[in-house]
Amino acid sequence: MSKIIDLSAPLYDGAPGMAMDPKISISWHCTLETLGYNLSRLVTSLHQGTHMDAQRHFYNDGETIDKLPLEHCVVKAVRLDLTKKTPDTPITPEDLKPVEKYIDQGCSVLLHTGWDKKFPDPSFFSGFPYVSKELADWFVEKKITLVGMDIPTPNGYDWKYVHVKMLGQRIVIVEGLAQLEQLPPDTVFTFFSLPLKLEGRDGSPVRAIALLD
Amino acid sequence: MSKIIDLSAPLYDGAPGMAMDPKISISWHCTLETLGYNLSRLVTSLHQGTHMDAQRHFYNDGETIDKLPLEHCVVKAVRLDLTKKTPDTPITPEDLKPVEKYIDQGCSVLLHTGWDKKFPDPSFFSGFPYVSKELADWFVEKKITLVGMDIPTPNGYDWKYVHVKMLGQRIVIVEGLAQLEQLPPDTVFTFFSLPLKLEGRDGSPVRAIALLD
Repeated sequence: MSKIIDLSAPLYDGAPGMAMDPKISISWHCTLETLGYNLSRLVTSLHQGTHMDAQRHFYNDGETIDKLPLEHCVVKAVRLDLTKKTPDTPITPEDLKPVEKYIDQGCSVLLHTGWDKKFPDPSFFSGFPYVSKELADWFVEKKITLVGMDIPTPNGYDWKYVHVKMLGQRIVIVEGLAQLEQLPPDTVFTFFSLPLKLEGRDGSPVRAIALLD
Repeated sequence: MSKIIDLSAPLYDGAPGMAMDPKISISWHCTLETLGYNLSRLVTSLHQGTHMDAQRHFYNDGETIDKLPLEHCVVKAVRLDLTKKTPDTPITPEDLKPVEKYIDQGCSVLLHTGWDKKFPDPSFFSGFPYVSKELADWFVEKKITLVGMDIPTPNGYDWKYVHVKMLGQRIVIVEGLAQLEQLPPDTVFTFFSLPLKLEGRDGSPVRAIALLD
């Protein structure tokens, strides 16, 4: 059996999220003492923690998360080391050079900035290196299947341009990944990001993993 | 790449659940028109639809869903055809004979009753063929890793016995699977049931899939 690597951030009552999003809340609906079993109730944004976006997030007539082909959620991928990027600077097509050959062979990419280490500090949600408009265009040009990242959103400034461009071309965007340093460099792995089957919806929290041969 | 088979039931606003559980509700927190993007808020039991149980569901000091080793969530498994079972009758160790050799080789099992076809009718939640106390004991004896099923809970009568026995031995229980008929008979596949990383909690909804070579 392959080695399984967990690439997900924790979900818990009161965990921080994007400022405008509904707050996550998890409470005990019943317990061993009341009904004979413990069972929790979860309230969450569909974009809390490690999650993926559907086209519907930015298109009223867009593909919803339950319709996303699972072949776009289980992909060959490589990690790109961006841990030397300065905070609050754009990630450009030039930065992607080290993994371009893999992308040209059909691989997806996980952008490893190391920014996840700031979570759960509020500073996690701003000032991160970000996907430039040029890089969003480049991903479209390369017809990449999926782009994952350990930042909370691809770009805090030109967020509309980047999402509309990438989602418009059905590029799967996985945000809020964690612990990407566990993935070896220059190695193709299988990345799994399986959304809950939420009918008609705009995204889903996921438990993202990599399988290493 | 292997063939991916979706084994999950849909999640949607107002979908039926177990009578005592919190009701699932999904609504638009904001839209393209209000904040420039569509984003939903989900309220759900952690045991809605296709989901898995952690030991914590029946043990106050039990292992929580975020601590479940992922090696127990990605397993070799076979499907057992139980579609000829009469409603409201026990599934016994005798019924498991056709797949015993696979279980003895370390495989997990998915119990295919076909009961998922009743969803979302309220009749889905009662009257199903169920895991007998003897079968729960047999699973423990066989040291099986995971048992999946297309019924809403293993046993509606002796629910405490069956859960306590199986979870006590760290057997992963996946409930509410769907469309198991897509899996070929007498074939080992890889089953994925990856829980959200919900710290300190009793279960998780999942997108369950099988990979067929």
